[in-house]
Amino acid sequence: MQGRIYLDFNASTPIAPEVADAMRPFLERHYGNPSSPHWASVPAKQALDAARAQAAELLGCAPGEIVFTSGGSEASNHGIKGTFFARGGSGHIVTTSIEHPATLNPCRFLERLGAQVSIVGVDKAGRVDPDAVRRALKPETFLVSVMHANNEVGTLQPIRELSAILRPRGILLHCDAAQSVGKLPVRMDELGADLLSVAGHKFYAPKGVGLLYVRNGVKLEPLIHGGGHESGRRAGTENVLLCVGLGAACALAQRVLATAPEQMRILRERLWHGLQARLGARVSLNGHTTERLPNTLNVNFIGRIGAEVLAKLEGVAASTGSACHAGQRELSPVLQAMGVPADHGLGAVRFSIGRGTTEAEIDAVLALVEKHFKD
Amino acid sequence: MQGRIYLDFNASTPIAPEVADAMRPFLERHYGNPSSPHWASVPAKQALDAARAQAAELLGCAPGEIVFTSGGSEASNHGIKGTFFARGGSGHIVTTSIEHPATLNPCRFLERLGAQVSIVGVDKAGRVDPDAVRRALKPETFLVSVMHANNEVGTLQPIRELSAILRPRGILLHCDAAQSVGKLPVRMDELGADLLSVAGHKFYAPKGVGLLYVRNGVKLEPLIHGGGHESGRRAGTENVLLCVGLGAACALAQRVLATAPEQMRILRERLWHGLQARLGARVSLNGHTTERLPNTLNVNFIGRIGAEVLAKLEGVAASTGSACHAGQRELSPVLQAMGVPADHGLGAVRFSIGRGTTEAEIDAVLALVEKHFKD
Repeated sequence: MQGRIYLDFNASTPIAPEVADAMRPFLERHYGNPSSPHWASVPAKQALDAARAQAAELLGCAPGEIVFTSGGSEASNHGIKGTFFARGGSGHIVTTSIEHPATLNPCRFLERLGAQVSIVGVDKAGRVDPDAVRRALKPETFLVSVMHANNEVGTLQPIRELSAILRPRGILLHCDAAQSVGKLPVRMDELGADLLSVAGHKFYAPKGVGLLYVRNGVKLEPLIHGGGHESGRRAGTENVLLCVGLGAACALAQRVLATAPEQMRILRERLWHGLQARLGARVSLNGHTTERLPNTLNVNFIGRIGAEVLAKLEGVAASTGSACHAGQRELSPVLQAMGVPADHGLGAVRFSIGRGTTEAEIDAVLALVEKHFKD
Repeated sequence: MQGRIYLDFNASTPIAPEVADAMRPFLERHYGNPSSPHWASVPAKQALDAARAQAAELLGCAPGEIVFTSGGSEASNHGIKGTFFARGGSGHIVTTSIEHPATLNPCRFLERLGAQVSIVGVDKAGRVDPDAVRRALKPETFLVSVMHANNEVGTLQPIRELSAILRPRGILLHCDAAQSVGKLPVRMDELGADLLSVAGHKFYAPKGVGLLYVRNGVKLEPLIHGGGHESGRRAGTENVLLCVGLGAACALAQRVLATAPEQMRILRERLWHGLQARLGARVSLNGHTTERLPNTLNVNFIGRIGAEVLAKLEGVAASTGSACHAGQRELSPVLQAMGVPADHGLGAVRFSIGRGTTEAEIDAVLALVEKHFKD
């Protein structure tokens, strides 16, 4: 089996053909600066407006609540640091032990500037208990940052419940939705977050673009100061080419969200049941059994090393731990936080399925597992 | 004369065809996350390395001194804030009155966090006096930020002289080279800056990508905290598509820099002499007569309003003031800082020439000027 099978869609997705098609005129033809007051700016400005409307439509928010960024990491940095500095540079932040480094490291940075930071743990399924967050609140808490779906294990967090606790107290809720947008419906009014980070390349837009949703009325200091772009919230000539791609990816997501999650879930379960049938008790699941991204299967090849498992699954692209901090051999911080035993977690492999993944690909992976690991 | 003539290359350039060609495989085919440990990451990682080498080659520096950013504004924010926070969040910054908002506004922000900021003025040509910078230094000065070439009038600053003053004192020099890279040779060892901001879309790369040159040994706090990308200096999955474009634009610049500046200068002088021949004393020049970008002509249509002049030059794309803060009717801050009288400066128009600008285009602009403004 020398074919290449990509099951690492949580690390990055291809640019969808319709996304590339939308971008091509801005690669080849339109080049104006959207801020310029002449004909060359018109297509750029219109395209930027259209992309913002497409993003707002997907999230169920107002276009003015969308701030385009260079990706999910910038969005989370902007949301966390921007609220801290907007209130004068003091206060208390609550976050969790399974957040992405783009949340945890801005918090660590602000801690050095005088912020207080509390980190709430998670259960074995990787879920945070809303009551634990409630207990961590202080009078000076201004922000709670909890991801929507974990990148490694896919566990979904109780964002609505958190919002119900925080909103009456006037505490802002930032949610890193880099992994959920495009895989599940994410609607701002249902979710209740005040700030939401989105990464384009996790749902078939290019790498290098994302957005921060900023609920109307939330005060935010820019992360990038300068010109008055993005209504004064993010300086820098707008990245028209990639924003067009992000908008097209949002429109595409909206078209497929009625069916794609269930298709991915079926394939994921096929993979999971196939692994169980072949490996029995030598495989275990990381993450919540039901409250989980439909495309994510993080499994422990018990007693093995994840990288060695992948080396034998020749041609299969998947991850051990998170791609953002690959190369390490320790149990990933997320699995540690979930209390996964080392002899299980060191053998963890994350398979993440895409919209175009096929049954044949799943079966080919299972055949490789059978060949190399059955005995 | 209904033809469209683009003379706003300081606002933004088209993506060069060879740049678009280099990018296309990453739009259409290669999609791996460069940090992933499998086959899908290989083309992305190689392309990123190649782009970094191309940028380093253009600037005459080591590839490890290049940090890719989302553009010039991020680069300047990173350089200024990054050095401030790396030294613990205190100290004195010297900058000038004609800097871009992406320099001035980060300084204003840091002032609110406790930084001291001194702003040195410029002469009538828009040049800063190195002695004035020297006099502004204090024992706690850690950073001087002076642009290489002004975006509005094109005046070049004495960066080498500044470096000679600052380096023996251990004071860092940040230089915003967004307008000079690609229009003039910019070599780090000749220039002597410790930090340099570059914006791709000013020299035929796409909008949304740039870089910060960081001299080896300079301590810099990330602006975007998170994963360990860019050797721990800038978190976020790398923008492979646009970095490839930036690299190709650097390679292209290196090929054309022997001839393009002089070609642009000749066309600019044709325009300037043509305007003088038609308008005589009713036109005047902003910026230095010789120490200036070869492509930039900022002229006052004395007694008129710049926007009204451009409205009559139908089809000609140019700027009044800077595209980054268009829409205003006051004298631009740069012209104010240069002491340009209001009745001159309100009529300022910036024509900025590109590598592909033709004599015929210049002559067409002059014909429009003759038609509308000769009497």
